[in-house]
Amino acid sequence: MSLIVQKYGGTSVGSIERIESVAEKVIGYRKRGHDVVVVVSAMSGETDRLLGLAKAISARPPPRELDVLLSTGEQVTIALLSIALEKRGQPARSYTGGQVQIRTDSAFNKARIEDIEAEHMRADLAAGRVVVVAGFQGVDGQGNITTLGRGGSDTTAVALAAALKASECQIFTDVDGVYTTDPRVVPQARRLDRITFEEMLELASLGSKVLQIRSVEFAGKYNVPLRVLSSFQEGEGTLITFEEEKMEQALISGIAFNRDEAKLTVLGVPDRPGVAFSILGHIADANIEVDMIIQNIGQDGTTDFTFTVNRNEYERALEILTARARELGAREVVGDNKIVKISLVGVGMRSHAGIASTMFQALAKEGINIRMISTSEIKISVVVDEKYLELGVRTLHDAFHMDKVPAV
Amino acid sequence: MSLIVQKYGGTSVGSIERIESVAEKVIGYRKRGHDVVVVVSAMSGETDRLLGLAKAISARPPPRELDVLLSTGEQVTIALLSIALEKRGQPARSYTGGQVQIRTDSAFNKARIEDIEAEHMRADLAAGRVVVVAGFQGVDGQGNITTLGRGGSDTTAVALAAALKASECQIFTDVDGVYTTDPRVVPQARRLDRITFEEMLELASLGSKVLQIRSVEFAGKYNVPLRVLSSFQEGEGTLITFEEEKMEQALISGIAFNRDEAKLTVLGVPDRPGVAFSILGHIADANIEVDMIIQNIGQDGTTDFTFTVNRNEYERALEILTARARELGAREVVGDNKIVKISLVGVGMRSHAGIASTMFQALAKEGINIRMISTSEIKISVVVDEKYLELGVRTLHDAFHMDKVPAV
Repeated sequence: MSLIVQKYGGTSVGSIERIESVAEKVIGYRKRGHDVVVVVSAMSGETDRLLGLAKAISARPPPRELDVLLSTGEQVTIALLSIALEKRGQPARSYTGGQVQIRTDSAFNKARIEDIEAEHMRADLAAGRVVVVAGFQGVDGQGNITTLGRGGSDTTAVALAAALKASECQIFTDVDGVYTTDPRVVPQARRLDRITFEEMLELASLGSKVLQIRSVEFAGKYNVPLRVLSSFQEGEGTLITFEEEKMEQALISGIAFNRDEAKLTVLGVPDRPGVAFSILGHIADANIEVDMIIQNIGQDGTTDFTFTVNRNEYERALEILTARARELGAREVVGDNKIVKISLVGVGMRSHAGIASTMFQALAKEGINIRMISTSEIKISVVVDEKYLELGVRTLHDAFHMDKVPAV
Repeated sequence: MSLIVQKYGGTSVGSIERIESVAEKVIGYRKRGHDVVVVVSAMSGETDRLLGLAKAISARPPPRELDVLLSTGEQVTIALLSIALEKRGQPARSYTGGQVQIRTDSAFNKARIEDIEAEHMRADLAAGRVVVVAGFQGVDGQGNITTLGRGGSDTTAVALAAALKASECQIFTDVDGVYTTDPRVVPQARRLDRITFEEMLELASLGSKVLQIRSVEFAGKYNVPLRVLSSFQEGEGTLITFEEEKMEQALISGIAFNRDEAKLTVLGVPDRPGVAFSILGHIADANIEVDMIIQNIGQDGTTDFTFTVNRNEYERALEILTARARELGAREVVGDNKIVKISLVGVGMRSHAGIASTMFQALAKEGINIRMISTSEIKISVVVDEKYLELGVRTLHDAFHMDKVPAV
């Protein structure tokens, strides 16, 4: 008998029928002897509907009032799921973020959880009840309703699992686990049984949308085993834990990619201290986030400075730098918004040399030109022309035999 | 500069446009120097939508969870109205029933207000903010969300006005005040400038649907002047207060009527103590509410016992009594579900004789047969055949010259 925290996202509770089927699933876990705390999101479409009402009144609704509004979405779901559980004879009790005392700071729309009061929930669990908690929301020290930002329900689930010292936090979603890469691009992509927190963080931040990145950080920090599994089909999903001796020793766990990239290059700036700051300072002032940064030393005492931004920010970043080119002493500012990033991720890289060369060779063989390279301890990222995305990912998936379960 | 509590019902906040127009109205009162606390209902249709979701899962949803669900309706409105106020430069702050600490008992779906924490609201008002409170909801001693039952937003407004010692509680609705009778039946019906709490209570309980009866009781108990006025047109509405010397001395303030009546008569029961209880006990056991009760002494040591019930309960009540007729020693049980009740209401009755005879004479002149009569200190009710409803109401409106403002 163990305590499990389960989270069901908006699609999983998107209709009355699906809420009823979540109730069945939860009762299945109860019957196998588990105590269950369930975290739910708003029914799919509901948050957008509420946001639409607010935007119909004001382009910039006050953040405090937006949280009062949006938090109703999950409140509806907790009540409906509790009704569905009770109808089946399973005692249940719903709690809003404020009721269960998910204490956050006062950063409306993007609050951070500070503390959780677990006592009430423990009493309910001891009484045989399923506890149903509204995801994505909390309450600050002054009693104001706060929300954690989109996807915050994952974070709620992990935080509850940590506070209750649950044996596992299960994130039910519309995919049945974490894959070696996107199966829509590589049909041979393979579901991973296990993956480390570090790898999952790299995959999530590189564009794999299975889990909200903050919830993975949180789970890692509090050592909460996290499992991603499907609401709609049976299966073990993917378990995200710390690295263990007996874990499968894949060199590469996954290939992530990101289509929303654009790169800018400032050519021929004087190679002196502070040049990076003087370029990126202007970009940061405009609240544009920079991803990869590369600086090459030129031959004539000048340097070429290249960085990538989200494709949506490309035009704005180009404008800012073009306007500042003279002041920066740059020869020219050029850019390209038809590029993508492909990344290999794997803790196995730590102990194995030669991965980068295998990667570059495989891409070269297919005539794919690498435009930028960036590496970290468990990741190698390359920027290539947009048109090579699918070919590049497939080539690397083959080159590292990622369709095969690695030998232990 | 005075403090006003305003309540806007579901129709008044039924769309984004209407919420914006409520914001304009509120700001108008602010500009005239008033502090304003606003209580709002759920947008019209929203409570039914939510109830529909619950009923799609279970015919009998647990009351606690139903309150968690339904309370989201008003929470959406408080956020939207606050957004609309802030957009216009009017600082505002929204509060749910739980946040403003509207403490109730734990009778889910029909909770009663026990206490209100006014301190927060006073601080907001002092800071120049409009306080926007969710109607219809509260929180019990254990932190559970409760609702006051349908129409409970009026009660919330009155309770807030009492707690804040407001100078007036204004109920904005889709009619522009309280009328001498329903203008759809009598086109000459006149809007009353003032009416007493007692009269309003009699009118409300007799079928005039302008205000929730509990809110009128509450206002009377805490001596909160209550004003009914239109959300959609300008005007002074109707002020409901205690009787004052200078109030218009109408004999009759209003004519109420109720179409949902049915009567049952138990004929020839032995005239002995306890007969009323033995008949009505069976009806009460079936949870059927009884309105008028009349007992006539017969000639042969037996009595005829007549009472009225809501028309929806007629068949059930008739079945129960027919089954029990032998046990009661009754000769026969008969009934009629094609009857209506018409009532004259007015504090002037206290000091004026002859009102009943004027009433009976006027009805007789039109050939309207009176089937039952019941009186209280400020009310005379008669039961007549359904077909005479409109004629009866118009006849009485004429007979008491109710289309004319009475001389002071």
